[in-house]
Amino acid sequence: MTTPVLLVLGRGLVDPAGPVLVVDDLGLQRGDGCFETVLVTDADGPSVPVHLDAHLDRLARSAATLGIVPPSRGDWNAAVRDAVDAWSEPGEAVLKLLLTRGVPGAGPTALVTVSALPDALLRQRETGVSVVTLSRGMPRDAHAGAPWLLGAVKTLSYAVNMAALREAARRGAEDVVFVSSDGWVLEAPTASVVWSSGGRLLTTPDGDSGILVGTTQRAVFAAAERAGIPTGYEFATPADLAGSEAVWLASGVRGITSVHTIDGHPLPVDPDLTGRLRAVALGRKQDL
Amino acid sequence: MTTPVLLVLGRGLVDPAGPVLVVDDLGLQRGDGCFETVLVTDADGPSVPVHLDAHLDRLARSAATLGIVPPSRGDWNAAVRDAVDAWSEPGEAVLKLLLTRGVPGAGPTALVTVSALPDALLRQRETGVSVVTLSRGMPRDAHAGAPWLLGAVKTLSYAVNMAALREAARRGAEDVVFVSSDGWVLEAPTASVVWSSGGRLLTTPDGDSGILVGTTQRAVFAAAERAGIPTGYEFATPADLAGSEAVWLASGVRGITSVHTIDGHPLPVDPDLTGRLRAVALGRKQDL
Repeated sequence: MTTPVLLVLGRGLVDPAGPVLVVDDLGLQRGDGCFETVLVTDADGPSVPVHLDAHLDRLARSAATLGIVPPSRGDWNAAVRDAVDAWSEPGEAVLKLLLTRGVPGAGPTALVTVSALPDALLRQRETGVSVVTLSRGMPRDAHAGAPWLLGAVKTLSYAVNMAALREAARRGAEDVVFVSSDGWVLEAPTASVVWSSGGRLLTTPDGDSGILVGTTQRAVFAAAERAGIPTGYEFATPADLAGSEAVWLASGVRGITSVHTIDGHPLPVDPDLTGRLRAVALGRKQDL
Repeated sequence: MTTPVLLVLGRGLVDPAGPVLVVDDLGLQRGDGCFETVLVTDADGPSVPVHLDAHLDRLARSAATLGIVPPSRGDWNAAVRDAVDAWSEPGEAVLKLLLTRGVPGAGPTALVTVSALPDALLRQRETGVSVVTLSRGMPRDAHAGAPWLLGAVKTLSYAVNMAALREAARRGAEDVVFVSSDGWVLEAPTASVVWSSGGRLLTTPDGDSGILVGTTQRAVFAAAERAGIPTGYEFATPADLAGSEAVWLASGVRGITSVHTIDGHPLPVDPDLTGRLRAVALGRKQDL
């Protein structure tokens, strides 16, 4: 898959197949930067990014923790608009915002891309996924008072997340639920973990656990509360997930994906609630 | 600082100031790759990389754990030779080998650069460094049976290492000694920690601790053993370091650097042993 639209902030649209990053860029040298992945949809007419404000909020928080001075919100919005306008395919697409520390002394590098949705992700929305639990190596309070561990920062240093997905594939699964070294469910490599228990929608507390604040999870929780479905932030074990009414992965591009199997054990699924949550996640509806 | 020599494996020397990486490269998108940093010296005549075989060994192990098929040893050696030959400055330099997973479907990206030594590192060799201890967030056995955590892999995902160095600077120190969540000394963000206790040279065991196997540490330990100085691999606490005879950071480019202060407390230094170890580390001598 090539990236059909590439925009460099400060330069504008450039050839997406051409080289764009110099070797001294700390994004390459150190994985030193942050990113966001945003769904683009034309469900309501022209192509628009879904939950863009929440993604830009998180990108700003990531940059602040990293000590990178990012482009202004206005510059990001203009770049996103130009990149999405340059995208001509109907249906959904993937918008990506990348921010690196750049070349020392020259300021950060900011890039926007728009590309097609990978078929595998589209399939997973329909079929759900099988997950394995893998240790993230840290206790659930590891990030307390330790901002240098970059909890809640969506960094470009995703090598462990990618290695975990390869381990899942080796075990015949499509995705991972990371657990803390003391046995608590954290998040997935590229998604929040959400589950339904006693009629409530639950997810793992962020903060000391270091997990990302999920933009999609927040959007569906807000819609759930408006619809009278209670929500909460609680630590759970993999056994708690196995005993819940349904488990999902929540992320910008896949939206809401059912987890039908965990560590080889089947889980109940809830197609009706899944569909309602997904419509909000994918920007097709405001309310459940 | 710009990189004065840049070689792309498969293409040869290219403009070091020009863009070299496409946006889809997983080195940028995910920090998915590995690297080595090697000292180049002309102490014995022509410029040569120091301990190159050990660095290429480690790069091959990193690539294998990541599941990246790297260039052959012969191709790396030829690329290093061409890059070092293109470097015309006298004295020492920094050779860097970078390997990314590349663009999906197109194979890995392999780059070699040669650039000047940062002045700050040269100064630190002479003055030593003040360090702070910072939690790495994981217990010392976190990597046991968990290869997806990429223990011992020198990945391009170094954002936490860089954030820890910024935290040290905020605290008025130059470097960091990472400790496990259960209180044991691990490694520095870009160096091994070596200390002298009871006349022995010691460092942290690799393996389940997930720390890198130190190429410089291994070279000086081998020379120490040949000189009749016993060496060992033992876990220590920061208090153990404070009670030792000397503490060093060992890395390819800085060589052997004395730690004169830890968390604000002065440490004894051993200028004679430091100088002897450094000469081996920097490739000026084979033996102590």
